[in-house]
Amino acid sequence: MQKPSIPKGTRDFSPAEMQKRDYIFNTIRNVFKLYGFQSIETPAMETLNTLLGKYGDEGDKLLFKILNSGDFLKKADNEAYSNIDSPKFANSVSEKGLRYDLTVPFARYVVQNRNNITFPFKRYQIQPVWRADRPQKGRFREFYQCDADVIGSNSLLNELELIQIIDGVFDKLNLNIDIKLNNRKILSGIAEIIGKPELLIPITVAIDKLDKIGEEKVMQELSDKGLNNKDIETIRPVLFLKGKNEEILKSLRDVLAKSEIALSGIEEMEEIFALISNVSVKAKISLDLTLARGLNYYTGTIIEVQSLEANIGSICGGGRYDDLTGIFGLKDVSGVGISFGADRIYEVIKELNKFPTDNTESLAIMFTNFGKQEAKYCLPYLNQLRHSNIPAMIFPDSIKISKQLDYANKNNIPFVILAGESEMQNQTFTVKNMIEGTQKSVLANDLLTNLYK
Amino acid sequence: MQKPSIPKGTRDFSPAEMQKRDYIFNTIRNVFKLYGFQSIETPAMETLNTLLGKYGDEGDKLLFKILNSGDFLKKADNEAYSNIDSPKFANSVSEKGLRYDLTVPFARYVVQNRNNITFPFKRYQIQPVWRADRPQKGRFREFYQCDADVIGSNSLLNELELIQIIDGVFDKLNLNIDIKLNNRKILSGIAEIIGKPELLIPITVAIDKLDKIGEEKVMQELSDKGLNNKDIETIRPVLFLKGKNEEILKSLRDVLAKSEIALSGIEEMEEIFALISNVSVKAKISLDLTLARGLNYYTGTIIEVQSLEANIGSICGGGRYDDLTGIFGLKDVSGVGISFGADRIYEVIKELNKFPTDNTESLAIMFTNFGKQEAKYCLPYLNQLRHSNIPAMIFPDSIKISKQLDYANKNNIPFVILAGESEMQNQTFTVKNMIEGTQKSVLANDLLTNLYK
Repeated sequence: MQKPSIPKGTRDFSPAEMQKRDYIFNTIRNVFKLYGFQSIETPAMETLNTLLGKYGDEGDKLLFKILNSGDFLKKADNEAYSNIDSPKFANSVSEKGLRYDLTVPFARYVVQNRNNITFPFKRYQIQPVWRADRPQKGRFREFYQCDADVIGSNSLLNELELIQIIDGVFDKLNLNIDIKLNNRKILSGIAEIIGKPELLIPITVAIDKLDKIGEEKVMQELSDKGLNNKDIETIRPVLFLKGKNEEILKSLRDVLAKSEIALSGIEEMEEIFALISNVSVKAKISLDLTLARGLNYYTGTIIEVQSLEANIGSICGGGRYDDLTGIFGLKDVSGVGISFGADRIYEVIKELNKFPTDNTESLAIMFTNFGKQEAKYCLPYLNQLRHSNIPAMIFPDSIKISKQLDYANKNNIPFVILAGESEMQNQTFTVKNMIEGTQKSVLANDLLTNLYK
Repeated sequence: MQKPSIPKGTRDFSPAEMQKRDYIFNTIRNVFKLYGFQSIETPAMETLNTLLGKYGDEGDKLLFKILNSGDFLKKADNEAYSNIDSPKFANSVSEKGLRYDLTVPFARYVVQNRNNITFPFKRYQIQPVWRADRPQKGRFREFYQCDADVIGSNSLLNELELIQIIDGVFDKLNLNIDIKLNNRKILSGIAEIIGKPELLIPITVAIDKLDKIGEEKVMQELSDKGLNNKDIETIRPVLFLKGKNEEILKSLRDVLAKSEIALSGIEEMEEIFALISNVSVKAKISLDLTLARGLNYYTGTIIEVQSLEANIGSICGGGRYDDLTGIFGLKDVSGVGISFGADRIYEVIKELNKFPTDNTESLAIMFTNFGKQEAKYCLPYLNQLRHSNIPAMIFPDSIKISKQLDYANKNNIPFVILAGESEMQNQTFTVKNMIEGTQKSVLANDLLTNLYK
């Protein structure tokens, strides 16, 4: 007999886990809706045409590919087979792959449906994605992404709105966070003022390590990458600007005065901070020039969220991209979006013990089952509770009451109702409060009104 | 430039479609919860060990198989390759497949987690499944199933509960239905009383066609399958029992008196009808002896739901199975479950034009954008609405107002708020009711209280 198991890197979610996960997903979903975002869903499978080449060579390798149906070997690439060239062979027997993220399918959706979409298109999408990554702690082969994007608008009001969404979600989840902001144009400006725009990536990679390896080693790395002493002295002040966000931006204006693109990035940041001042935001908001995530991708604002209470890395991130749909033939459509990392958020809430303990949707009441007659006596009242929207059940089998109570305990059911012969005779119920360990008798007809008293 | 597309048999869901689908899923989910069912989720991918051999030969062919990662050709079956034996070759380069239904993964889950489950286990599961079926109208390669099962209890109270759930769901969806019930044991009894239990399947297949091909042809088919005239005369009365459910059962007791198994099935049905009489059920409930779905599978009660308003086949079905987890090594655990067909339910509601038109979760208010200053003027009030849980947005770009109004129209936003120079000066807003085509001026500070007046 085979021992049942699931593929490595995948997970089952038990009812207890689902309740916690739904708490996170529902919180995110409700805030998305509050801000006028509308949901879409795309298929788990996309054509390999859509997926390949969008995530770099490494990403291509991490795609789960689906074998063609039927006699797929008829079209197999014999040469690739002889050469044991698995990737090339795969392309001859597979035309579909599992979605790797929600962004590329979204871009594909927008282009495919562009005649039916009224722009700006504010969409959210909460669906699983799959990556053939090496599984390790906190990294899975199947996991959910929760994305919100606005496509077809250059306005920085969108950035404001996404920041408010982040603030709203984590406020509702009772988590303290730091929303870190940067702008790709400022980073480009830094490379520009030393006349080495081609070194943008190595420079930002080095700067990104400041917290981890310290000033001296960052400067060494910059030197290794081809910056001379003068370049390094020009850049150094940028990294050590201190003060309020507005003050840093003011100083940046001086240091990067010669770079037009930097000034445009600084102006965007100033505008975003000015917009934020019109609304109330509870989260800490920091301008962080070392923030360089997704640099191949983002063209303006860059956003990353860190927990102030748990050391777990980024729990949400995003930014603006000026030409996402270009890969599918729709040019010059700007977008900006964020993505919540539900698994990490789950870990933070668990670590901090901040999952809510009361849940109005969970099972509130269980009638015990003393036998067929007693069960029938309970049924109309059970029905009444459900009609009043109170989740309730009757234990289906008339087994030992201690076992039935055990079931109630293990399922965290707060109220158990006992109905034996004497209760039937007196038209009453005995209500057991499982949390306080008390019990009382109530008239059957008063059950609904007396239950919680 | 590639023209973007999705794999055949799969679908994108637009915001308008998602809203309707969520209405169906949420209705089903809420009723499941009300009856004390708890949700689980299982991975999209299962090992082929788990999937193969569970759905018959035809089912095996319809599994989507996933190519192993990395250098999968190293383990390829060269002999199968030479013989162009695609299925055999597939087994050497693929270890995982996409879930084909929710029942087998559920059975696998129960066995794998049996030490952590308190039985009876009442679980629901709403997730997509994938089948490499030939796509056709109403049949897709990716579709959602909505299942509720109780496992580990023989009590017929579970059948009652599932019938109540069906009744509750379709009542909330405002659909009129017929819940058809049968019992596998009665069908077995029919084959038994003519002494031909081995003909159970052909007999029920023939009986199942009564509505479509008529009495004469059914009798002909029965004769073709090996029933003699006496057999047919014995069976005939069974098919034409008329009257109330209780009356049919009474007559059945006489006709099938010699079959112990039939009597046991009749007794179960009587008990279920007696239980139903203790609760209020709005749906029509019919005993239907021609109901033979899932016969290889179900061992007791069989349930099928048909719309009384649309001719679309079964929109929900289920039954009791006595040994589902046996395939994974856990013997003698009885289960009973139902599955809602969300796609068909969607079609029925659409055909009958019964989707609700009011949706409190959809975007209610849009502020137009006359420019930067005007937008900033709006922001605190926009914020106030969201704090009051009213989904609202500001149009991000200050483009022509007619285009902004067009956006509001296309997104069915009922209220648009205009704030230009004069409104700013007077600290007011102009509120446009897009449905009635009226507009009024309100003090900015009274916006929230005056909006809907």
